[in-house]
Amino acid sequence: MTPASGRRNTTMAWADDSSLGLHRRALLRFKPGGPSTVLLVKKHRDTEASQKLEQLATWLRGRGVQVLVERQVLAEFPHLEACSGNDVHSVDLCITLGGDGTVLHLASLFADDARPIPPVISFAMGTLGFLTPFSAGEAEAVLAKLLWPPWQAEPVFCTLRTRRQCEVYWAGRMQRVHMVLNECLVDRGASPAMVLLECFVDGRHATTVQADGLIIAPPSGSTAYSMSAGGPMVAPSVPCTIITPVAPHSLSFRPLVVPENSVIEVHLPSNSRAQARASFDGRHAMRMLRDSSIVCRASRYALPMINRHPLDEDWYEGITQKLRWTGSLRPLTSVTHPPRDRT
Amino acid sequence: MTPASGRRNTTMAWADDSSLGLHRRALLRFKPGGPSTVLLVKKHRDTEASQKLEQLATWLRGRGVQVLVERQVLAEFPHLEACSGNDVHSVDLCITLGGDGTVLHLASLFADDARPIPPVISFAMGTLGFLTPFSAGEAEAVLAKLLWPPWQAEPVFCTLRTRRQCEVYWAGRMQRVHMVLNECLVDRGASPAMVLLECFVDGRHATTVQADGLIIAPPSGSTAYSMSAGGPMVAPSVPCTIITPVAPHSLSFRPLVVPENSVIEVHLPSNSRAQARASFDGRHAMRMLRDSSIVCRASRYALPMINRHPLDEDWYEGITQKLRWTGSLRPLTSVTHPPRDRT
Amino acid sequence: MTPASGRRNTTMAWADDSSLGLHRRALLRFKPGGPSTVLLVKKHRDTEASQKLEQLATWLRGRGVQVLVERQVLAEFPHLEACSGNDVHSVDLCITLGGDGTVLHLASLFADDARPIPPVISFAMGTLGFLTPFSAGEAEAVLAKLLWPPWQAEPVFCTLRTRRQCEVYWAGRMQRVHMVLNECLVDRGASPAMVLLECFVDGRHATTVQADGLIIAPPSGSTAYSMSAGGPMVAPSVPCTIITPVAPHSLSFRPLVVPENSVIEVHLPSNSRAQARASFDGRHAMRMLRDSSIVCRASRYALPMINRHPLDEDWYEGITQKLRWTGSLRPLTSVTHPPRDRT
Amino acid sequence: MTPASGRRNTTMAWADDSSLGLHRRALLRFKPGGPSTVLLVKKHRDTEASQKLEQLATWLRGRGVQVLVERQVLAEFPHLEACSGNDVHSVDLCITLGGDGTVLHLASLFADDARPIPPVISFAMGTLGFLTPFSAGEAEAVLAKLLWPPWQAEPVFCTLRTRRQCEVYWAGRMQRVHMVLNECLVDRGASPAMVLLECFVDGRHATTVQADGLIIAPPSGSTAYSMSAGGPMVAPSVPCTIITPVAPHSLSFRPLVVPENSVIEVHLPSNSRAQARASFDGRHAMRMLRDSSIVCRASRYALPMINRHPLDEDWYEGITQKLRWTGSLRPLTSVTHPPRDRT
Repeated sequence: MTPASGRRNTTMAWADDSSLGLHRRALLRFKPGGPSTVLLVKKHRDTEASQKLEQLATWLRGRGVQVLVERQVLAEFPHLEACSGNDVHSVDLCITLGGDGTVLHLASLFADDARPIPPVISFAMGTLGFLTPFSAGEAEAVLAKLLWPPWQAEPVFCTLRTRRQCEVYWAGRMQRVHMVLNECLVDRGASPAMVLLECFVDGRHATTVQADGLIIAPPSGSTAYSMSAGGPMVAPSVPCTIITPVAPHSLSFRPLVVPENSVIEVHLPSNSRAQARASFDGRHAMRMLRDSSIVCRASRYALPMINRHPLDEDWYEGITQKLRWTGSLRPLTSVTHPPRDRT
Repeated sequence: MTPASGRRNTTMAWADDSSLGLHRRALLRFKPGGPSTVLLVKKHRDTEASQKLEQLATWLRGRGVQVLVERQVLAEFPHLEACSGNDVHSVDLCITLGGDGTVLHLASLFADDARPIPPVISFAMGTLGFLTPFSAGEAEAVLAKLLWPPWQAEPVFCTLRTRRQCEVYWAGRMQRVHMVLNECLVDRGASPAMVLLECFVDGRHATTVQADGLIIAPPSGSTAYSMSAGGPMVAPSVPCTIITPVAPHSLSFRPLVVPENSVIEVHLPSNSRAQARASFDGRHAMRMLRDSSIVCRASRYALPMINRHPLDEDWYEGITQKLRWTGSLRPLTSVTHPPRDRT
Repeated sequence: MTPASGRRNTTMAWADDSSLGLHRRALLRFKPGGPSTVLLVKKHRDTEASQKLEQLATWLRGRGVQVLVERQVLAEFPHLEACSGNDVHSVDLCITLGGDGTVLHLASLFADDARPIPPVISFAMGTLGFLTPFSAGEAEAVLAKLLWPPWQAEPVFCTLRTRRQCEVYWAGRMQRVHMVLNECLVDRGASPAMVLLECFVDGRHATTVQADGLIIAPPSGSTAYSMSAGGPMVAPSVPCTIITPVAPHSLSFRPLVVPENSVIEVHLPSNSRAQARASFDGRHAMRMLRDSSIVCRASRYALPMINRHPLDEDWYEGITQKLRWTGSLRPLTSVTHPPRDRT
Repeated sequence: MTPASGRRNTTMAWADDSSLGLHRRALLRFKPGGPSTVLLVKKHRDTEASQKLEQLATWLRGRGVQVLVERQVLAEFPHLEACSGNDVHSVDLCITLGGDGTVLHLASLFADDARPIPPVISFAMGTLGFLTPFSAGEAEAVLAKLLWPPWQAEPVFCTLRTRRQCEVYWAGRMQRVHMVLNECLVDRGASPAMVLLECFVDGRHATTVQADGLIIAPPSGSTAYSMSAGGPMVAPSVPCTIITPVAPHSLSFRPLVVPENSVIEVHLPSNSRAQARASFDGRHAMRMLRDSSIVCRASRYALPMINRHPLDEDWYEGITQKLRWTGSLRPLTSVTHPPRDRT
């Protein structure tokens, strides 16, 4: 869109960072020969997932693919190779076996934001989740079609799920960095008192928050904790960040949806009565000291997650089937699209 | 963002329409000499707005600018020129004098979506609104700085506000088209019964709605009727569409935020008990017959609206000052940003 | 409760009207011989309901009960007697055949509030509703057990559902009175503009409302339109009135629950830009002129509605089964009550 | 209300416990001579409150009133008498000096529910709260008018605020009892995982809750934590209990308002993954073991709290002034009640 191009008397430049784009819904195609190296990640301490991993590894190696696993499970799979921290960006495909938590764990392996992330396909060991659209039982069939597609195959649908880079500052210096796919949460932890937080967007004070907590979430997190706290349902390809309070001490706090390229900062003021707690995708809980801040910005690289259906269909199915979202108390029936001429 | 560029074994194409971009927050600069032609639009039947228009027209012509007005007010300003429907896209700047409604009226003058829209600056005759960040009293001072900026002046901040093109279909054919900046509303009108609507996103059935109504809104509408119906606050530069039900007959309906480039269709089924009503930015109310549909898609060209402050600051000020949005019951005090090293 | 009785130095009187009590959940027992006179009310223009009425009338007359029907259906049942307006309070039992709407219609027959209302039992012709806990198919079996109970039978459970008397005032005088079981609604009707209403509780100004509408509901209405507008679920035996706005133009409007014996007044101010519309249990829609008021107060007599289960069990089943209310996304399983010593 | 009295063929008994009544809004009058004994309770570790207590004690003793203080502050006021646990029910009036927390502390002194509670008047040391309608500066003037009213004085308005008795059960036996005025909260404490609770009302399973927590509150608590969690505003004289989830993992959980005389039980199932935490009016936090329960029932005796204004006016003022509750974005102006003939 070049809204002012060719206009006689104005020029336009951009205040937005131009490194991000609106393209989120992609068609992916493996080059002839398929992937060379695949990383298999499984649910922690899950026997069924281990069996499935073993089975898939054999199947993939039989097709000439190099299979890597995490170093920490190497003892369990001595005949496989470990994936070092540096290798992780150079694999051609990641496969998870487990639940949504296993996908969050995989995502955490891509801790820096300097290189693109390989595509991910996720197989649910139990019930399907928002991040696990395929079931483990169909893994080989799905992978065969995906990796060695027949001539003129259908494209593979893929959503680029952005993450947020969360930098923790104290005493003016950055202490830690975490990347989140679901949410960064600042809350009161075990404290009986509400937290008092100052929230800045793009360097400007947006509001003072008195609440149980505050959620900063990319769209992927809109069906997770943000939903519980009353946030809107946001399709994964909307380039935005959701700011949702948890139990705010106010009648007039409504969730906020801001541009993905806005920088959000949550500050625990030095005069706060209580300390706070921060956590990242439900992990890495840490005490947040007075006068510390968390700065959240969009990651440069997104997680390309392979879908079952085109566009956002998986997601609509998810909110309807898993969250029972609906605008009607009538039983759902199959509805056909009205015919139409579109000259 | 080229997430897979250079990856060994995959190629990626886009399922999204690439005609839209994420750039929404612009810096605008008039070329030396300033605008040649300016369109002045005023609040309907408002004496003060007429006086202000007269005053501004004299001021602008004194600076060599050609001033146009709407044909319908020409009788009131016989010494000015009328702007024909074709001219409207070729003016260099639009100025409104009135309230948010006057801006909606101006927007409706750009009825087709084939050419870029000139920048708009809006002066409130009364209290400031979300679309009118400047007050009429300061008009000359603001315009002088904007149009004939001193050497090395600060840039002018501008938000590209997208509209939705709403096509009304019946009997398989398009009947009418309206462009909306705030919202398209399908509701029960004077009927005592709820409407029953089928809602499709990107050709897929998303949900059946039983409610007083359904709102389809670009972000600009998030502080209008969608807010009343419980929708989230969405900054004007987020490329998305908000779908908010009004009084849904369901406990589990939550507002939806979908990508701007998703096509949303609202269908009144042929077996519906009642007819419905559609309206566009609160105007052009029409009866919606059974088996008719409204298809909403992002407009190609956005409305470049000049802001008082950089980025989305005007908007944050608006939700805090006008809507009294806040996360805290503590009185608001001025909060300073924490200092920080960012090596 | 006499909280200060016997206290040495204080006396206490009541500011509340003492004509209402907290007793709402009753055990009903027909005296030996059962009812003498029964009023049968059926869904308007419903063939199945007519057949069922015919069948029940024969069955009841065979047991020596006098059967009355509404005058307006007498042509359909020439061998039955009509119930005059005066008779209606003197029947021993009312039976409805239809849906929740049929119960609302029956309730409207008790238009004055000077005498107690006979018990009501409601049989659903289709799916069960909040006011129709029994299905038509089981009518004779249920009635036999209810009216001629075996020796030492279980008691019949009954909820006393209070109504609100809604008085419409204009030019200082009462114009009309309606009794409502679900709600009194003041809304914008076909007007595109919000209504502006002044709301008084017990003669004191409570708030100014700018909204699509305002709902004044006894608890029975909490699962009807008030639910759609975001109101809480209120068990039918709570002696209160719910005040729920519809799409309020405010971030900080929350539904209000006030004592049943509070008098609520909704006033359309004389300087209102638009007229409003009032309706009562979804009927009797009327235009509300500027400077008119609606005054809602608890009715003196409640509608004794016979339940299927003790206490509020029918209601909990209703919100769970019909409205799909739940605090959990886990599939509902049968849960047994934990055992406990209560010395 | 005797809805069926005098009906020919039915008798009615009550399923409700008849020990509770609807009378909540009382007029209180001290007998000539005023109170003999007054208990003064002050905010913990607050110098200003100590000074005010000293001052009021002198003033009251000068008028022949015996002044008692809590045993724990006796060292601070050696010339005053301590109030033993047994004495507390026999004082004629309680006075608090502090904030809402001081009132909650006073309430906790009435730990058993066997005898009526004396009237309470509360003076705020700082800003007025929902439980502290008078300011400390006006204490003597207010007390003089209250205790030694002039001939034909206006009555004193008083709201009977009921409490909930919360019994904690484990291994089938009652372990502890707490009385709450604001709320009983079961939450996840420091645990990162949601709690899973079974909720029973009147012995029947109402719902399974997956959430951050669950609030059981009398109406007094509706403006406290329940408000933050999205609960309705409930006037203090409505005889009900509010059940509000905190961040429920469900789209369809809505707050519940049930009769005051319903018994509510929250059970932590034995198969729960995590333990939970319970707290009572924000104090007495305790770990809740698996298979333990909390049973909440209405207290027999209410706390008579003296108001500034008649009926619920203090409360409406509180939600408008303190919580900024309003249905309108228009600035609030004083609105006069429409005149009316009520023949």
